[in-house]
Amino acid sequence: MAPFITLVCLLLLAAVLPSSAKNVKKGKIDIREECPCKLAPRPDKAEKALTARWMVHSLDWGILATISTRLGGDTSPVPFGNVYSFVDGTCEKSTGTPYFYGTYMDQSYADSLIHETVSFSLSEASLSSVCTEREAFTSCALGTKYGDPENPVCARLTLTGKFVVLTEGTEEYNLAKEAIFERHPSMEGWPENHEWVIAKIDIEDVWLIDFFGGASILTPEEYFAAMGDER
Amino acid sequence: MAPFITLVCLLLLAAVLPSSAKNVKKGKIDIREECPCKLAPRPDKAEKALTARWMVHSLDWGILATISTRLGGDTSPVPFGNVYSFVDGTCEKSTGTPYFYGTYMDQSYADSLIHETVSFSLSEASLSSVCTEREAFTSCALGTKYGDPENPVCARLTLTGKFVVLTEGTEEYNLAKEAIFERHPSMEGWPENHEWVIAKIDIEDVWLIDFFGGASILTPEEYFAAMGDER
Repeated sequence: MAPFITLVCLLLLAAVLPSSAKNVKKGKIDIREECPCKLAPRPDKAEKALTARWMVHSLDWGILATISTRLGGDTSPVPFGNVYSFVDGTCEKSTGTPYFYGTYMDQSYADSLIHETVSFSLSEASLSSVCTEREAFTSCALGTKYGDPENPVCARLTLTGKFVVLTEGTEEYNLAKEAIFERHPSMEGWPENHEWVIAKIDIEDVWLIDFFGGASILTPEEYFAAMGDER
Repeated sequence: MAPFITLVCLLLLAAVLPSSAKNVKKGKIDIREECPCKLAPRPDKAEKALTARWMVHSLDWGILATISTRLGGDTSPVPFGNVYSFVDGTCEKSTGTPYFYGTYMDQSYADSLIHETVSFSLSEASLSSVCTEREAFTSCALGTKYGDPENPVCARLTLTGKFVVLTEGTEEYNLAKEAIFERHPSMEGWPENHEWVIAKIDIEDVWLIDFFGGASILTPEEYFAAMGDER
């Protein structure tokens, strides 16, 4: 009897234990359970520039806001937000500069040709949204006493600056492309006839809320220096 | 021996099975594992207006973009994106109109006093970000062949319109407040001296990507009529 119970026990355990395999079947598609990059520890809330850098290196998508060329006009500008994936470097090398893989077929890239200054906004709430093994921080989770994406302890960050296209073949272009495909592997298979363009934001302003007491505004110099980089 | 193995087996199972309790300890805080609202089935991708309505009713936060009053100027408008929680009604009643709970101490509300037209952008990727029991759709998850927040099959939506403050005590104000506290329970405890204001977007334009082939642009009439509402 004992061997039988042991067998049943092992089978049951195998069924309920989280799979340690790299790929699991969810719905119709195989999902890779791990993010490409290991999540670095979140800096202390007193370290504003480090927190901003941590968000830009750790998060995978945000909203790029432009001045709309489809709506509004010169005397009545209208903002247009649009979801964009990004990276700020490879897993191993954070640069602090967000890099984008897009096309002029998309509204935001088209808008940037007329008004080159854009903003890019990130929420700590997105940390757990696209890598299935990551858990949300309680600061952003609904249902807790202080948890909400709008709560100051759920960090939010907006970078503002000029939208700059990288020249194909330059060192920065090649590094950005490698980093983009590392974290956003599906992009490598996107159709070539869309004429993909790698662009970055040349950061001029950093606006961060990661705790009570209002926004912290950082200079690009403070932001880049936090991890030893020059602007 | 058999009873002992059975006991060990049951103890092991109890340890690894997901808890069915409503509240679980994660980190330092109790988390309520369930979202207040049950997730409705995602409409077919051919149903553009219904998909937009489903996103606005199902998602919990997005990025509100304004014309910055802190940066830029009249001749060089600068967009400013900022994370905002929202609801479009109670769990039972979707109105299609996003309602916000904010304060003029925040940059976006202050910006809206000068330029009243704003945009509000949502990503389907955020579906699983703040309710811990919800799983991301594979369309948005990194590591799959087509999965990425920037991939067209991970739906993204931008609503544009005037930012309108609700008058306290009106029927619409009371309904919006009830709905906001239902889905964002921590807000009910936020400090009263911040003078919270409930505002909405009076939708003038609906921009949606939920599949290959470019953006779908809907009129407010199409958007509201999808669920039987008048504008």
